[in-house]
Amino acid sequence: MTVPRALVFDVFGTLVDWRAGVLAEAVAVKDRSGVSADWAAVVDDWRRGYAPALVRARAQRPWRDLDELQRESLQVVLDRHAVTLPADEREALVRSWRRLPPWPDTRAGLSRLRTRHVTATLSNGHVALLVDLMRFGDLRVDAVLSAQLADSYKPDPVVYARAVELLGLEPQEVAMVAAHGEDLAAAADVGLQPVFVRRRREWGPAGGEQPPAGLPGLVAADSLDDLADQWGC
Amino acid sequence: MTVPRALVFDVFGTLVDWRAGVLAEAVAVKDRSGVSADWAAVVDDWRRGYAPALVRARAQRPWRDLDELQRESLQVVLDRHAVTLPADEREALVRSWRRLPPWPDTRAGLSRLRTRHVTATLSNGHVALLVDLMRFGDLRVDAVLSAQLADSYKPDPVVYARAVELLGLEPQEVAMVAAHGEDLAAAADVGLQPVFVRRRREWGPAGGEQPPAGLPGLVAADSLDDLADQWGC
Repeated sequence: MTVPRALVFDVFGTLVDWRAGVLAEAVAVKDRSGVSADWAAVVDDWRRGYAPALVRARAQRPWRDLDELQRESLQVVLDRHAVTLPADEREALVRSWRRLPPWPDTRAGLSRLRTRHVTATLSNGHVALLVDLMRFGDLRVDAVLSAQLADSYKPDPVVYARAVELLGLEPQEVAMVAAHGEDLAAAADVGLQPVFVRRRREWGPAGGEQPPAGLPGLVAADSLDDLADQWGC
Repeated sequence: MTVPRALVFDVFGTLVDWRAGVLAEAVAVKDRSGVSADWAAVVDDWRRGYAPALVRARAQRPWRDLDELQRESLQVVLDRHAVTLPADEREALVRSWRRLPPWPDTRAGLSRLRTRHVTATLSNGHVALLVDLMRFGDLRVDAVLSAQLADSYKPDPVVYARAVELLGLEPQEVAMVAAHGEDLAAAADVGLQPVFVRRRREWGPAGGEQPPAGLPGLVAADSLDDLADQWGC
């Protein structure tokens, strides 16, 4: 396994703690609106509806961005929980995906890895969302790449292929870094190197994913610092 | 004129000194190959052939990146100057566009402007080239946007429109920052705010462009620091 020239990073869950960020906004929504609910359950359900919504969206034209999809799936989740929120508070929750705290090791880890590798996001968030999110967390990468640039969503193979093309590299020169096995398996199918970073608190007390089994050449790390250590950055 | 939320920067000539960078590589080529020529004239001629080559390329499909176009136009210029170079030395010149020194104010100026504005490149260089170039100069922006993402070249209006779309903004919320009137006029036609930065040494002793006339709302600055001063960054 060669050390990759470029690293592309999943963002939600891998670089930032979506659950803490969205839950913080939900608490603010509750305080402003007085609407009570099991907000942790609402947030987790919303996130569970994320992957199926993207699968449906991949087949649709024109391509629609994550804000639009999240707006729809939030409404479905709120209805299921019998929660009624004013439009501006629903929009505040949709916008909260641009203000998610990085994991404690993310900022410094990205900086270390960037000294020896080209770094980029490769997220289902659109470019405008990612720009806001990376600014919010003061996270530096060399390029903000997104499924938007392939008019699709991960784990569609065209998303990984487009990132490799835009970086001007061969697939085997690029590593996909993610806390999620499905993302890594899809990237590996296109020829990218799979790199798993374990995020034990992604789902709060319910934990995070284990390293995926059956991916040849998988690199596994407990943090971006650990990854930088392994690669001598 | 409102202060823009996002600034998109032309790169060659505006952020970096293409002439010094390419000429330095030409001197290295001469030293390695022993081929003598009026290298400053070759470099300037090569750059003069740049805009017409892009106009021709805009009409062609599939879209081809700047490396390919520069490779072709370099050969034309070398033939015109009766200079014969081995393939690897021609390629070294093509690759030199990824190692161009920033102007002295660029790095700090971009940092100051980024505190109050979203910043991005908007160059005819492709993403892979821009990633290398921004890393070479340690230049930080929030997003690397390129004419490549519109499958065209500036000053095609679709390039500016695509950048505005990817930033999730309205055209009037975005300023195009460039040392070249043609770029600014085309951006203004799409509704972006034109911001001229004067680069008095772009063509070496032959100087650089004057601020363009007849552009309503033009902001003109002598450097990125001057621009940051004007906008209170």
